[in-house]
Amino acid sequence: MPKRTAQDIRRRNRFDALRCVFAAPGPVSRQEIAAATGLSFATVANLVAELLEAGVLLEAGHEDSKGGRPRARLAVNADRGALIGIDVAETSVQVELFDLALTVLRSVRLPLPRADVRPDEVVETIVAAVEGLWDTAEGRPPHVLGAGVSVPGLVEREGGVSVFSPYWSWRDVPLRALLAERLDMPLYLDNPLKAGTVAEMWFGAGREVDDLVVVTLRAGVGAGIAVDGALYRGATNSAGEWGHTCLIRDGRECRCGRQGCVEAYVSTSGIVRTVRELDEDSPLLDADEAGVVTSVARAAAEGDAVACEAVARTARYLGMAAADLLNLFNPQTLVLGGWVADRLGEPLLRQTRDVIAAHALPATLEALTLRLSTVPDNPVTLGAATFALEGFLDDRETFGPVAAGRRAARAARARTS
Amino acid sequence: MPKRTAQDIRRRNRFDALRCVFAAPGPVSRQEIAAATGLSFATVANLVAELLEAGVLLEAGHEDSKGGRPRARLAVNADRGALIGIDVAETSVQVELFDLALTVLRSVRLPLPRADVRPDEVVETIVAAVEGLWDTAEGRPPHVLGAGVSVPGLVEREGGVSVFSPYWSWRDVPLRALLAERLDMPLYLDNPLKAGTVAEMWFGAGREVDDLVVVTLRAGVGAGIAVDGALYRGATNSAGEWGHTCLIRDGRECRCGRQGCVEAYVSTSGIVRTVRELDEDSPLLDADEAGVVTSVARAAAEGDAVACEAVARTARYLGMAAADLLNLFNPQTLVLGGWVADRLGEPLLRQTRDVIAAHALPATLEALTLRLSTVPDNPVTLGAATFALEGFLDDRETFGPVAAGRRAARAARARTS
Repeated sequence: MPKRTAQDIRRRNRFDALRCVFAAPGPVSRQEIAAATGLSFATVANLVAELLEAGVLLEAGHEDSKGGRPRARLAVNADRGALIGIDVAETSVQVELFDLALTVLRSVRLPLPRADVRPDEVVETIVAAVEGLWDTAEGRPPHVLGAGVSVPGLVEREGGVSVFSPYWSWRDVPLRALLAERLDMPLYLDNPLKAGTVAEMWFGAGREVDDLVVVTLRAGVGAGIAVDGALYRGATNSAGEWGHTCLIRDGRECRCGRQGCVEAYVSTSGIVRTVRELDEDSPLLDADEAGVVTSVARAAAEGDAVACEAVARTARYLGMAAADLLNLFNPQTLVLGGWVADRLGEPLLRQTRDVIAAHALPATLEALTLRLSTVPDNPVTLGAATFALEGFLDDRETFGPVAAGRRAARAARARTS
Repeated sequence: MPKRTAQDIRRRNRFDALRCVFAAPGPVSRQEIAAATGLSFATVANLVAELLEAGVLLEAGHEDSKGGRPRARLAVNADRGALIGIDVAETSVQVELFDLALTVLRSVRLPLPRADVRPDEVVETIVAAVEGLWDTAEGRPPHVLGAGVSVPGLVEREGGVSVFSPYWSWRDVPLRALLAERLDMPLYLDNPLKAGTVAEMWFGAGREVDDLVVVTLRAGVGAGIAVDGALYRGATNSAGEWGHTCLIRDGRECRCGRQGCVEAYVSTSGIVRTVRELDEDSPLLDADEAGVVTSVARAAAEGDAVACEAVARTARYLGMAAADLLNLFNPQTLVLGGWVADRLGEPLLRQTRDVIAAHALPATLEALTLRLSTVPDNPVTLGAATFALEGFLDDRETFGPVAAGRRAARAARARTS
């Protein structure tokens, strides 16, 4: 039996109203928020009052409303505080500083010291990168509202634990607690699939649709799913483990120990393997794994036969696997995201679309739009920072009964004065 | 951007409150409903007032509440009206009459005249079966509140159209409109996957968990998904098309025209094929397809080698396919439903569990309970009748502004009299 409290609904409505302000090209009125969200004007007025009180929104001018009194226009108060997004990837850590409008202010990337890195080494690297952010004339911003941390693999969010990270064979690493000893700010832990999907929901394709699948292609591969405008996590936050579903029975060995996983075909190392199968001596292979993918993209654009075939095979693997994923979720939009998809771009999108068309059910196809991610820069740092924003919006100090009491007291004072 | 109106929330809360009454072993108090649903007492009191007014609930005695005033206990008013569930399966139509407590009162099953049946023949068979229900001393019940109709394949619910039914190659058949000419009651069209899942949500495993996958094994195969206590339909009601995801590349031909689909291995005809691969001359094959499955179940229980191996292979196919499905959805519970699962029972469950354990990710497994459906009788007719119940609960005449106005007027009269 579901337990949806009035507080859950209020929280969700607060997110929706704010997403609507973020999505608009300029300041918006309460009426426009009500129209876009389907919430009543009274509810929106109430939510906006809270968000103004908390300094998250500010009034940015007025519009005429045909004879009525002018409508206030609202915008995000970018200077209310800063957010940090941390993307712990397989070989490096990227840390970005955002204002509250989620504009990148500064960015630092540091390599991880070794391939089989220990948790304490990752913590050191993160701390060094965050301190690198302060290394400017302005120094540390006065209000850092929180940092989101994305770490590959299975994450237990509430406890802030990296339950399992296949790349480094980590198990039950209390990463948030380790970081909390060194970083003085609220911390939110999740994985790159969830971060990339939340970025898409707030700043990409999710602005237009509620049912969305985001496929992320990097060193790891997986899917993020938005259902009815909310991130779908499953029972233990491991929904979307598409990278380790079986594409080809008894196929390529996967680093997870199974065979034929999607990830063994369309991840960075999967694409390297495809190139190697095509031509063991290909000059495309003279680079690290990420470099090979970049070379393939460039060479394919120039018509290199091996590179073109590598893209075609990758599209074939990706399309076959995506067709099944789409038959199960029947989303309005499939987004191809992650830097591998960025790098291979339109040619991958076009050929994948053809393979999906040949393999998915007609009903799935009719509903579907397939597109590359349009989220700028790194969707994972952006999504991680968005988790910190969501955490801040959830904060009972800011929006809970205490704040409500404060508002009521202020209103009472205003009436009696 | 989601459009969740106050009315949507109210509707959902009404369903939740009523599901809670259905799930209880006896009459329940408003306090118990509030505790089970997480709704406030005031909200529950309001919903209960509506449901009492509409005659859906009735007061069934009182309980002492330690010195306070006695709490009224509530139960479903079984006699408020009748509901009909119609299961159009591949070779027959089953029609059942339910009271409002969803107890089966009468049941009629008629064979379909031919394998490649036309829509008008199906309509005739349904009408004959429904008329068969009245063929008792009591005749037609006074208040038939609606009928749910389950038809295989892709269904467009709002329009009541069978968009595509692969078994009969139907396309865009306006089944609800055709039936409306002959049956004088509200009609609700959907497919057996959705019906079986709704039955599970109201009367089976969904009473205990909110995130649920129901795999249905019959002539067709598919999955129904409940997310956060609500049926997940996808963009065009085709989510859960698991039967036509690929289990084995270039594997068995499927009736959908693709190769290696899950359905080609674990449906009725898939199991017949497995038996034939094991022993072309097996006496198990001396029956129609459904009969073969029944024979396999019986012979396996007696230790017949071919039958045991057929069950083992079916479990292997099912487990491999289910592992991927579970990795994607990460549900709390997987229910094996449909009559094929009922027939093969515990041995199939046990062996499938072992295969899933070998193929799914640890995080998926940890969260998961695997069980056979415990929904009594035919979950599809029950689920179809539940759609009719949901439709009745959605009815604006009963619960909309008109009814609210009526209630308000009555309350005003009571105050002035």
